[in-house]
Amino acid sequence: MPRYALKLEYLGAPFAGWQRQADQPSVQGALEAALLRLDPGPHAVAAAGRTDAGVHAWGQVAHCDMGRDWDPFRLSEALNAHLRPHPVAVTACARVADDWHARFSALERGYLYRIALRRAPLVLGAGRAWRVGRMLDAAAMAEGAAHLLGRHDFTTFRSSMCQADSPLRTLDELSVARVDGPEGPEVHVRARARSFLHNQVRSIVGSLERVGAGAWTPARMAEALAARDRAACGPVAPPDGLHFTHVRYDPDPFGSEATGT
Amino acid sequence: MPRYALKLEYLGAPFAGWQRQADQPSVQGALEAALLRLDPGPHAVAAAGRTDAGVHAWGQVAHCDMGRDWDPFRLSEALNAHLRPHPVAVTACARVADDWHARFSALERGYLYRIALRRAPLVLGAGRAWRVGRMLDAAAMAEGAAHLLGRHDFTTFRSSMCQADSPLRTLDELSVARVDGPEGPEVHVRARARSFLHNQVRSIVGSLERVGAGAWTPARMAEALAARDRAACGPVAPPDGLHFTHVRYDPDPFGSEATGT
Repeated sequence: MPRYALKLEYLGAPFAGWQRQADQPSVQGALEAALLRLDPGPHAVAAAGRTDAGVHAWGQVAHCDMGRDWDPFRLSEALNAHLRPHPVAVTACARVADDWHARFSALERGYLYRIALRRAPLVLGAGRAWRVGRMLDAAAMAEGAAHLLGRHDFTTFRSSMCQADSPLRTLDELSVARVDGPEGPEVHVRARARSFLHNQVRSIVGSLERVGAGAWTPARMAEALAARDRAACGPVAPPDGLHFTHVRYDPDPFGSEATGT
Repeated sequence: MPRYALKLEYLGAPFAGWQRQADQPSVQGALEAALLRLDPGPHAVAAAGRTDAGVHAWGQVAHCDMGRDWDPFRLSEALNAHLRPHPVAVTACARVADDWHARFSALERGYLYRIALRRAPLVLGAGRAWRVGRMLDAAAMAEGAAHLLGRHDFTTFRSSMCQADSPLRTLDELSVARVDGPEGPEVHVRARARSFLHNQVRSIVGSLERVGAGAWTPARMAEALAARDRAACGPVAPPDGLHFTHVRYDPDPFGSEATGT
C-alpha cells in the first residue's frame, strides 16, 4: 500500500482536537472522512502531534496509506475538495517509504504561542491569540524561560492526564520575543523539542505570563521545575494562542517533491 | 458636545461595508447602536474611509459627539462591551477639538492588500487574503506599480460608481513585496495617498496581478493609466485581501493620550 505524507493546516476552534472521537468533530475524523471518499480504506491516519481542542496548526504532518498509486498533487487536490467546508487544508503531499511514520520518524516539533497585549477585544486575531489586558515584561519572561532549556523532568509542566511514560524531555528552544504587529504589541513564545508532554507548552506559557506580569520572579521558573510537582505550575494558558508550526524530518519528505502548496 | 476620535478594527465579512444601510449590517450601524446604549444621540458617526463590503480595517478612524464628558478609556471600554458580538473593536479613543473631523482632518490613508500564492484553500488566512493559485512575479509587479506613483488622472482605476468630483489623485506609495509567511508565500501591495477613489486599490491590485502572472507587461500599467478609460483596467481584485491599515493626522489624536489599547 503506497504511503503518503500530508502537511496540514487547520483552525482549532471547531474541533475537539486532532484525535478521532465518536461523538465530536476532530481533525483526524475530517481527514479520514475525506480519504474515504477517495479510497475504501479503512483509514487510520497517524499524526506527528495530537493537538488539543482549540489548538491551531500550520505545519501538522500526518500519513495515510492508499489502495493505489496517486500523484501526490492530485491527492492533495482531491483531499482539499472533500475537506470542505472544514477549516482544514492539505498544503503539501509527498510519497514516502512504507515504513516512514509521521509520528515516529519526527526529529523535532515546534510551537508558537501568541499573547496579545491589549485591552480591546481581539477582532482579526480573535481565537488566535491569548489576550492579556496588561503589558508583560518580555525580558523577564525570557530570563525565566532560560531556566527550562535543556533536558529536565517536566512533571510540573505536564497535565495530570499526560500518558507519556517519562516526564523527561529536552527543550531545544524556548524563546520569548516582543513583536509589534498590526493589531498591537504581542509576546511570542517559541518552543522546539523532539517531543512534548501533554499541555507542556501551555503550562510553561501560563507560568511565564506570571513572570511577565511581575507576580513571579524569573527564578521561580527554576524553582517550579525543580519541585517536580504539578501544583507548582502557574495557570495553564488557553488553547487559542497555540500554533503547531512545524515538524522536522531527515530527509524532509516535502523538500523537493512538495506539491499542493 | 464633546467630540471623541475612535480608532477601529473590524472584520469585513459580516458587513455590507462601513456605511449605514437600512436593511443590512454595517460597521457604522453597529457602532451607532453601541453609542445609543450610552447616550441618547442621535448619532451620525463620520469615518476617515467608507470601506466596501468585505474590506477589513486595523486602523479605521471615526469620530462621535457625546452629550456629556467621558473619560476616553471608559468610553472605549463601554463601546467594546456594547459592540459584542460584532467583530468590531475600539482600539484607541481620544478627546478631540469640536471642529476635528475624522474624514476632513485626515492627511493620509493607507491600505495593505494581501495576495496568497498557493493552491491549497486558505485556512488561517481564509477571507483575509486573495488566493491566487500560481506564482506571481513580484519584481514585474513593482515595476508596473512604479508607473502609477505621483499625481495622475485615475479614471481607469476607479469604479464607474465613484462619486468623487475629480479623478485626480496622488499616490505617495504603491509598493509590492514578496513576503514568506507561515501560511506560504504572499505578495503584499501597500498604498498610501491623501485620499483614494472608489475601488482604486482593488482596481490597481487586480491589474498588477495580471502583470505578476505575465499576462500584462509592466509597461501596460502606464498605458492603462494613460487611457483614462475604465475598460483598460484589469479585473477588480476581491475585497477579502484589502485591509485599511492607518489614517494619519497632525497631530496624531491618539499620540500621547491613546487609551483603550
